[in-house]
Amino acid sequence: MMRNIKLLIEYDGTNYIGWQRQPLTQGKNIQGLIEDGIRKMVHHEVSLNVAGRTDAGVHALGQVANFFTRSTIPAERFPWALKGMLPPDIVVKGAWDVPEDFHARYSALEKIYRYTIRTGTAPSAFDWRYATHIAVPLDVKEMKKAAGFFLGTHDFHAFCAQGSPVKKFVRMVKRADLTQEENYIYFDVTANGFLYHMVRIMVGTLVEIGRGRWNAERIQTILASKDRRCAGPTALPQGLILKEVKY
Amino acid sequence: MMRNIKLLIEYDGTNYIGWQRQPLTQGKNIQGLIEDGIRKMVHHEVSLNVAGRTDAGVHALGQVANFFTRSTIPAERFPWALKGMLPPDIVVKGAWDVPEDFHARYSALEKIYRYTIRTGTAPSAFDWRYATHIAVPLDVKEMKKAAGFFLGTHDFHAFCAQGSPVKKFVRMVKRADLTQEENYIYFDVTANGFLYHMVRIMVGTLVEIGRGRWNAERIQTILASKDRRCAGPTALPQGLILKEVKY
Repeated sequence: MMRNIKLLIEYDGTNYIGWQRQPLTQGKNIQGLIEDGIRKMVHHEVSLNVAGRTDAGVHALGQVANFFTRSTIPAERFPWALKGMLPPDIVVKGAWDVPEDFHARYSALEKIYRYTIRTGTAPSAFDWRYATHIAVPLDVKEMKKAAGFFLGTHDFHAFCAQGSPVKKFVRMVKRADLTQEENYIYFDVTANGFLYHMVRIMVGTLVEIGRGRWNAERIQTILASKDRRCAGPTALPQGLILKEVKY
Repeated sequence: MMRNIKLLIEYDGTNYIGWQRQPLTQGKNIQGLIEDGIRKMVHHEVSLNVAGRTDAGVHALGQVANFFTRSTIPAERFPWALKGMLPPDIVVKGAWDVPEDFHARYSALEKIYRYTIRTGTAPSAFDWRYATHIAVPLDVKEMKKAAGFFLGTHDFHAFCAQGSPVKKFVRMVKRADLTQEENYIYFDVTANGFLYHMVRIMVGTLVEIGRGRWNAERIQTILASKDRRCAGPTALPQGLILKEVKY
């Protein structure tokens, strides 16, 4: 009987060229390491569908993937067995049998991302993997206001990396909150789907507003333009984490 | 005029063979990278005295070092200039002119270390650098009680790695607290000085007590034995951080 198995995965993306399997000459990728581990268990090639293909340096607390197998290994055995085959910065936290029509990407109803900015002049030896350091003062109040303009259903073409093969740019943003705690600014964003580099371009744009280059209302102009060149730069990957995928 | 400059240093020890300068064939060391950076600024060889020579994988939030120079570069320039020469996991947080007789190690009055244990069965892709994962259940109440027996002035010979060249083993422990917060157990220890591997052997012994191999009073027996073989194993370096050095 063909089984469909869903995996919940946590990883630190620092040392990887990203999720996607690529020739090893390009560097280590997360998908390849997990597929290789599963293959050794089930004795056939497997191909993982993933909820969100993260880029180099981007992390995941709750990435989701699925694969098909005829193996009779109980699903709950996968996390434990893979632990011995994966490096410490990739952890398979859970595995479950799911219905045949479950697809990690197409079945996803919403995704939750967080982007972390470290403020102040002092860098940190510990959080550089998990936060982007911006030393110039930021107007957090204006950034909060700007984040609110992302809420709702919009054409996010201006917040999609150029050259993306995607043709539909309308997405529904359910949450877009900016909060400040001590030396950190968090941007929490939930949507029914994200375009390529969408969160990082949102953050790059919010930072331009925080620096005083634009005011908050500029978000509306950028959305209306549907032109990537009107938005801010793409923020660095280090601060980005895929927190959760909802089905 | 000969100047004595004190540095406050933060680092993530994961990717290093430790603080101490060693031939590069052994792997990257923290001392060597900082000395090389300072040499490029002051145009002569420098040698750093350090408060605590940390091992491979051990971190520092407040390591202290000092060096002598005739350079006229203002002290506060060092952190900024070194930032461009050091990798992101080593940060010089401050630099000050200090009196000629200041020595990072010999002038230290006390050092504050923290050791972090991650409990529960789930490993984490994010904190494996900063916590040692112990999946078996631990009796935290008994460990707390045991930690209390370290307080005060004792001969810590049994908690010193064998082969250490040190000849005096009496140290005064001012704080030895074990606390639990969610999935973590923290061991916070302050003393007027530490022997080689002392904190890690203390933790290895506390874990044996937490597992039920010994009861808390065993600490007194081990101290009295002055014999390394009576104590528990040396805990892994990953959970250890030098938090602060007081002068």
